[in-house]
Amino acid sequence: MDATATAAPAALDTLCVNTIRTLSMDGVQRANSGHPGTPMALAPLGHRIFTRHLKHDPADPAWADRDRFVLSCGHASMLLYSLLHLSGYGVSLDDLRNFRQLHSPTAGHPELGELPGVEYTTGPLGQGVSAAVGMALAERVLADRFNRGGATVIDHRTWVIASDGDLMEGVAQESASLAAHLGLGKLVVFWDDNRITIDGTTEVSFTEDVAARYAAYGWQVLHIEDVDDLEAIDAAIAEARTDEARPTLVVTRTHIGIGSPRQDTPQAHGEPLGAENVRLTKQAYGWPEDSDFLVPDEVREAYASVAERGAEAGAAWDEQMARLRAAEPELAAELQRRMSGTMPDGWADDLVATQFEDAGPAATRQSSGQAINLVAPRLPELIGGSADLAGSNLTTIKDGGDITAADASGRNLHFGIREHAMGAIINGITAHGGLRAFGGTFLIFSDYLRPAIRLAALSKLPSIFVFTHDSVYLGEDGPTHQPIEQLASLRAMPNLLVLRPAEANETLAAWKLALEQTDRPVALALTRQKLAPFHYGGDSRLEGSSVERGAYVLREATGGTPELVLIATGSEVHTALDAATRLEEDGTPTRVVSMPCQELFVEQPREWREAVLPPTVRARVAVEAAATFGWERFVGDAGEVVGIDRFGISAPGEEAATALGISVDGVVSAAHRTLATVHGEAR
Amino acid sequence: MDATATAAPAALDTLCVNTIRTLSMDGVQRANSGHPGTPMALAPLGHRIFTRHLKHDPADPAWADRDRFVLSCGHASMLLYSLLHLSGYGVSLDDLRNFRQLHSPTAGHPELGELPGVEYTTGPLGQGVSAAVGMALAERVLADRFNRGGATVIDHRTWVIASDGDLMEGVAQESASLAAHLGLGKLVVFWDDNRITIDGTTEVSFTEDVAARYAAYGWQVLHIEDVDDLEAIDAAIAEARTDEARPTLVVTRTHIGIGSPRQDTPQAHGEPLGAENVRLTKQAYGWPEDSDFLVPDEVREAYASVAERGAEAGAAWDEQMARLRAAEPELAAELQRRMSGTMPDGWADDLVATQFEDAGPAATRQSSGQAINLVAPRLPELIGGSADLAGSNLTTIKDGGDITAADASGRNLHFGIREHAMGAIINGITAHGGLRAFGGTFLIFSDYLRPAIRLAALSKLPSIFVFTHDSVYLGEDGPTHQPIEQLASLRAMPNLLVLRPAEANETLAAWKLALEQTDRPVALALTRQKLAPFHYGGDSRLEGSSVERGAYVLREATGGTPELVLIATGSEVHTALDAATRLEEDGTPTRVVSMPCQELFVEQPREWREAVLPPTVRARVAVEAAATFGWERFVGDAGEVVGIDRFGISAPGEEAATALGISVDGVVSAAHRTLATVHGEAR
Repeated sequence: MDATATAAPAALDTLCVNTIRTLSMDGVQRANSGHPGTPMALAPLGHRIFTRHLKHDPADPAWADRDRFVLSCGHASMLLYSLLHLSGYGVSLDDLRNFRQLHSPTAGHPELGELPGVEYTTGPLGQGVSAAVGMALAERVLADRFNRGGATVIDHRTWVIASDGDLMEGVAQESASLAAHLGLGKLVVFWDDNRITIDGTTEVSFTEDVAARYAAYGWQVLHIEDVDDLEAIDAAIAEARTDEARPTLVVTRTHIGIGSPRQDTPQAHGEPLGAENVRLTKQAYGWPEDSDFLVPDEVREAYASVAERGAEAGAAWDEQMARLRAAEPELAAELQRRMSGTMPDGWADDLVATQFEDAGPAATRQSSGQAINLVAPRLPELIGGSADLAGSNLTTIKDGGDITAADASGRNLHFGIREHAMGAIINGITAHGGLRAFGGTFLIFSDYLRPAIRLAALSKLPSIFVFTHDSVYLGEDGPTHQPIEQLASLRAMPNLLVLRPAEANETLAAWKLALEQTDRPVALALTRQKLAPFHYGGDSRLEGSSVERGAYVLREATGGTPELVLIATGSEVHTALDAATRLEEDGTPTRVVSMPCQELFVEQPREWREAVLPPTVRARVAVEAAATFGWERFVGDAGEVVGIDRFGISAPGEEAATALGISVDGVVSAAHRTLATVHGEAR
Repeated sequence: MDATATAAPAALDTLCVNTIRTLSMDGVQRANSGHPGTPMALAPLGHRIFTRHLKHDPADPAWADRDRFVLSCGHASMLLYSLLHLSGYGVSLDDLRNFRQLHSPTAGHPELGELPGVEYTTGPLGQGVSAAVGMALAERVLADRFNRGGATVIDHRTWVIASDGDLMEGVAQESASLAAHLGLGKLVVFWDDNRITIDGTTEVSFTEDVAARYAAYGWQVLHIEDVDDLEAIDAAIAEARTDEARPTLVVTRTHIGIGSPRQDTPQAHGEPLGAENVRLTKQAYGWPEDSDFLVPDEVREAYASVAERGAEAGAAWDEQMARLRAAEPELAAELQRRMSGTMPDGWADDLVATQFEDAGPAATRQSSGQAINLVAPRLPELIGGSADLAGSNLTTIKDGGDITAADASGRNLHFGIREHAMGAIINGITAHGGLRAFGGTFLIFSDYLRPAIRLAALSKLPSIFVFTHDSVYLGEDGPTHQPIEQLASLRAMPNLLVLRPAEANETLAAWKLALEQTDRPVALALTRQKLAPFHYGGDSRLEGSSVERGAYVLREATGGTPELVLIATGSEVHTALDAATRLEEDGTPTRVVSMPCQELFVEQPREWREAVLPPTVRARVAVEAAATFGWERFVGDAGEVVGIDRFGISAPGEEAATALGISVDGVVSAAHRTLATVHGEAR
């Protein structure tokens, strides 16, 4: 058998490459679904990276100083799964055989958390290459802090394989510009230049000079003329390593579906080759035609070197850590704490201790800025910034300094007017570990980064998004800037917490909760306008607010037995309080419920939910200066929702809100309607 | 008074420019809100474009062959409003005085439809410059069709002023690449290179070589070193006109807040200058310090030339139209029909006549492709395409040909993997008039173009979005590709119709409805998997389906008096039908309601709504393979929703759906629960 004959080094590499190619073909063929052509094309690159250049240890996939490898073209997942299998990660041949099947970790696209060695969830194009910018940034920030005492404990690269589609996507263009701006010289992106898209050749839609574009951003641009030339791969990588001031794009010429009858055609992209084509391709490779998921022994032996290299690298790192521990024991402990995702003792003490009994009105964006700055001194891993709205989002860590190309010791990031890249980069920083990151913009522009928010939610990444100017109360900027449906559309997303605090106390509690999350992102919705703080009267703000339970009784009805419940979030809790005063004056015992987080409330045990919203009280009004969509679940059939089911209006905030029906009068009228409904039913 | 002294030509221009500057300052100051610095900086450019270069006729702002002017940096709205006022559009001085006030058309950001002369809603950065690509594309397509018989009836340019932020946004980068690819040589973008962002100088986040980037896309790049040099503006525009094969970027150096104490600072961007600074600035301009909204007579006289130029241009066009009318009367009539937004007689005949009584199962994406091709021959203004998924979205107009740089006679667009630009470009084509445009991608990637969908909804543009692969039934591609919350989040958006047809008949009706819209966009959600057609048994498919009423009784309960109503959309209508069969076998008279469009159903008169969902039948189950969010409004307190409130799973479609609870069993169980609830209450 040709394929498994004892091989000279070059022949052995060919054997390895063809193993990856045939595993990928077989996986897709068996699933009868998937993308064979790209794994086949990229097999030499993946092989060379994993066996020669990637610093990784399959025995310790969470190793802090490992290189990160991101397959941004996630549809080529069989490439990654094959490499992980061969390299000794916890991916079995059976996992490969079960590619894309129910409950198999080898999902259609790689999913973070499903398999060791998968560094990021990819598939939605542009996301991986952008998150990689966050990973490379995290490396720089951590290296700056922890490489002390003669020890080099953080020194790794971020490798990306990206498709045409990745480079066409806006998010990737935003993040590429920022990567160069920040001088992320340890980021290397291989562009799979196969000149084929789903709709045909790239001539159909993609004729720009990609290399010149990346040079314009400030990247080093290198070329591999033929991906099958393994020495050329090595040479490009060696060259990439020489420039640590600029990220590197390696234009890598490949041939999709190489060796198959469908080579260089769009048909090789997204469908199985078919049994006959698989056979012919294996024939062309000199591979046993009827083999299935064949891994020759020589290939297994060759890949054993990955574990050896990994063990050596791990041992070298242990030495560096020992050096750091000797020179800077606290720093060494901090690094280990941070990489484990553990919060430092007392991190929230200043947040918890802060009282607002005597404070004046403050916008919740101001309270958010206060929260950030109360936490920042005790939580050194916290970094963040804004998409050019720092002064409006109030996201700046005071005296934190900026993170720039020249200096990574700061804590404030300037994302520019690149909301989508911000989202992906925040996710990448979070996925990297060792840091907690937040990013701010106006709530309306959450739409711009929505795919990144979704990826955080899907990947269980506790990214924090700070969305200010959260309603029509922002005023004159008008309907282009006034969020209406954003709250509902974020709430519809699984595994995302949407927190809309009503004033200072709730805002601090919301930030505490946001930072406590380990497996889901948080979106904070914060006001532009000032709001008076609540006076709970208890010992503790946090006990008073119960933000962590999603909703709580803020003001009980006179007499303790409500006939009516008003439910509100954010600034409209104040509207509800004023309406309750009026309604009580008119003789209706009215409870006011503050509901900063629908998702958390829904998660509570029935006892809590029914204690807050008693099933017997069917007269309910929800009020929120936003789309009413989704509020029925809390007010029920007899209830009313006071909201805004149209676009906003350009006018001073109060006038705009009143014109759109958000007012004490509006809530009182709705209350009368729901009371009439309930009384009518009772008759 | 210096300012109003009789002026030599250059001095007169200065007077005009300072009028725009002071109107802008005064407008922002009076509103005590807005962005003064950019209108001040760009006043010379706006002045020169509006008085010398823009082909427009304020007396006929809807003129088909006018140049389009898009102020992509919509926050500089006072520049546009001032120019419209001076040029004789229907913008009064009082409108300027009421800038950003309730019910004033001079909204914080320009809104399409609010004022004549506003060509696009701008403010969300990157949208205007991308929609302008659509406008320039529409011009090429229309010119190709209508410049016949020796007549040139379509020959206009698209002018854009864009900010740093516009050029940083991913959507603008995507659309810039496509603009060059399509050779849109009549598109001219002035980049307001003021080197200031909100967070500081552009050095903070934007250090790329923008000119080189645009050159890499394939743009002509020109420079204006000083925007106050009016001859340099003229020269750049003359140069731009010489190259009709490439779009042009004009790097225009400006000084934000010029002449004010805040010149060249971020403070000049987004807040009023303050009364004292306004005074000092007017002093620096040689302007009466205490003037307010002053328009010198000479300026009024100078701007009278705009109307004269407009009338001349209009007369010249009338001649061309007369020539076309003589040579090609039907074409002339078609142009006028199309620009008026009127559909041709009989456009839907083939759609209406198509019957599926004997057809086999088809995915609704297939039926959608059929609808497009049934309509296309009768609706020449219909063009569209896909973001590199034409073969999956089935958006191709057969024999329509491609629209390319070399040939604009085709009907199919290839957007590349640029979903966001696709959305903005579809909007721009639609805003231009004379064409109806659609764009396709997977439903999951609706997230990528969400800001563009919103802008269509806000601007009342009937853009059509074709979203296929609309649920977990797409199968193996897994959670990164399986939409969950997308339907809910689109439904939460005001003024958008979300149509999820259940099979072939409904799909054709949905397309008819989509094309009938004049003031709102439509999102079609279509299946990957095949579904059997309904057999209504009536004369007409369209009468049978009642898609236009949002929901209808698809199958009545045995005996005509339902105890239970099942409500479903799309593929899950079939699940509901199967469940109804089971439930009826078990003795529960069950009605099945197909609800392809929640929004249209909610708009119906109460009689229809209660005829479909009788208030007396409180046992209701909604089933949709998507987030349950928002369904409570239809099922009520006693009802149940069968949906998916988690992310999807990679497996063959049926297996994935079943594992996630979407099945006949799931619906039957939910039916038993709601029946138990209702019976329990009745006891």
